[in-house]
Amino acid sequence: MIAVDWGTSSFRAFRLAADGGVIARGAAADGILGLSQGGFEATLRRHIGAWLDAGERHVLLSGMVGSRQGWIEAPYLPCPAGAAEIAAALVRVPFEGAEVLLVPGLSDHDEGGVPEVMRGEETQILGVIDYLADGLACLPGSHSKWARIGGGRILGFRTFFSGEAFAAMRSATILGRMMQDGETDPAAFARGLARAGEAGHLLHHLFGVRTLGLFGQLAESESASYLSGLLIGHEVRAAMEPGARVHLIGAPALCTLYARAIEAAGGMAILEDSDAAATGLHLIGRTAPWR
Amino acid sequence: MIAVDWGTSSFRAFRLAADGGVIARGAAADGILGLSQGGFEATLRRHIGAWLDAGERHVLLSGMVGSRQGWIEAPYLPCPAGAAEIAAALVRVPFEGAEVLLVPGLSDHDEGGVPEVMRGEETQILGVIDYLADGLACLPGSHSKWARIGGGRILGFRTFFSGEAFAAMRSATILGRMMQDGETDPAAFARGLARAGEAGHLLHHLFGVRTLGLFGQLAESESASYLSGLLIGHEVRAAMEPGARVHLIGAPALCTLYARAIEAAGGMAILEDSDAAATGLHLIGRTAPWR
Repeated sequence: MIAVDWGTSSFRAFRLAADGGVIARGAAADGILGLSQGGFEATLRRHIGAWLDAGERHVLLSGMVGSRQGWIEAPYLPCPAGAAEIAAALVRVPFEGAEVLLVPGLSDHDEGGVPEVMRGEETQILGVIDYLADGLACLPGSHSKWARIGGGRILGFRTFFSGEAFAAMRSATILGRMMQDGETDPAAFARGLARAGEAGHLLHHLFGVRTLGLFGQLAESESASYLSGLLIGHEVRAAMEPGARVHLIGAPALCTLYARAIEAAGGMAILEDSDAAATGLHLIGRTAPWR
Repeated sequence: MIAVDWGTSSFRAFRLAADGGVIARGAAADGILGLSQGGFEATLRRHIGAWLDAGERHVLLSGMVGSRQGWIEAPYLPCPAGAAEIAAALVRVPFEGAEVLLVPGLSDHDEGGVPEVMRGEETQILGVIDYLADGLACLPGSHSKWARIGGGRILGFRTFFSGEAFAAMRSATILGRMMQDGETDPAAFARGLARAGEAGHLLHHLFGVRTLGLFGQLAESESASYLSGLLIGHEVRAAMEPGARVHLIGAPALCTLYARAIEAAGGMAILEDSDAAATGLHLIGRTAPWR
């Protein structure tokens, strides 16, 4: 089968063997943003045409391609949900020469009754669920997801706005004016993590990024890393208890930063395979209603 | 004497009687941003020239005019500090035909040893300190200040980045894309306040602004007011204990929103005179070292 992880800004395709092994792969910057309605079919055919010619007939898509801004909207499926529930809710996409199915996103509600949504992350989580019957998974990003897994299903999840909050603080506040671009500075990131564990609300800690700079206690080359540590540190301390084991799924560089934050907050971090989406799509594909 | 509250984006001048009563006043958008070094003297003379001609000789300035970006930098004075300490630390500004003195800002440290600064707010606080020997004052704004007052002095203070965080979320994130401009919607603001009191970190609550909109539970005309209530609610709950009496100093519209937030969090709000800066400058001027 062919597995496609199709997000807002990226496109990743995998040709999978019957056992789920990756035979071939492709990646491009062909995210759904900027694609017109006709553009989805043409883009997909361009990337997987050779595999279709070689005889593949089953194509499974996950990610923002199933959102209102995507190809066809696949309604959110409520938690708890596992591979069986998701396979039963796949949405069929008209496509000449192959069967194309779309994975729905998941929804949940928090303690206050406010809705939660994910789209694409559910497939990555399923990629580690095969051996992780119970536990906590974290998928860092603009809108980080923390999912509770039990009995082989996603029981529920919480989203944190940390990544986008960082970008907004960086680009649109006085804090960003002092910041230099560059690699993450490990010592400054660690100072931000430690600060997140101190007394005081995030809205107070943010002002400290400014005053530490004003008093020469934080260099311009350090302040972006400090702010990143501050925000990720606040997220991690709110999302997990000390002693938690957290399975990290996502881009390796960002997962490494989250691993440091989890350890600083008394947890244990396990870095998962960054091909989790392919594994999850294979798991769903095994029980999908192919004709 | 002449009292001038000179900030980043505004200029307010008062001609005061010996008892502190306001004889005349002027206001302009001549903030310090964009003024060159020679521009400060010319701007001041333009606004207060008629009062100097009428015989005034003592001019006291407070606000960002004393910052590094201002006319002359007045070093921060550490807390605790009252009118006597501030009067002893005034900085003299060369000016033909009058004595001009500059009020220093105040500094403090929080529990984590991170510096705190204010510049201009100390003078407004002194404006209510004459009758408020002990208590808690809040000065809402881009960088809100919460000051503890005791024995007629400012004992210490904490800053919250709420105002600037709101502006950044509004202008630079996906949350802002759904927002319409307009007056604050009282019901949506109250929903944001209530949300701030629920379980979950601010970074989680922020994502809810998005999902409530996605699920049709928050209108585009309501979401800016909800976000404002969420951020101010978080600030107030972090800055005060239930049962606190908080003296609000600042722009009446913003102070009214903070009063609702303080009451929603179980406190009591007292709206102070918006001419607090003039009163504070008069108090300092009484003991200033005029030649």
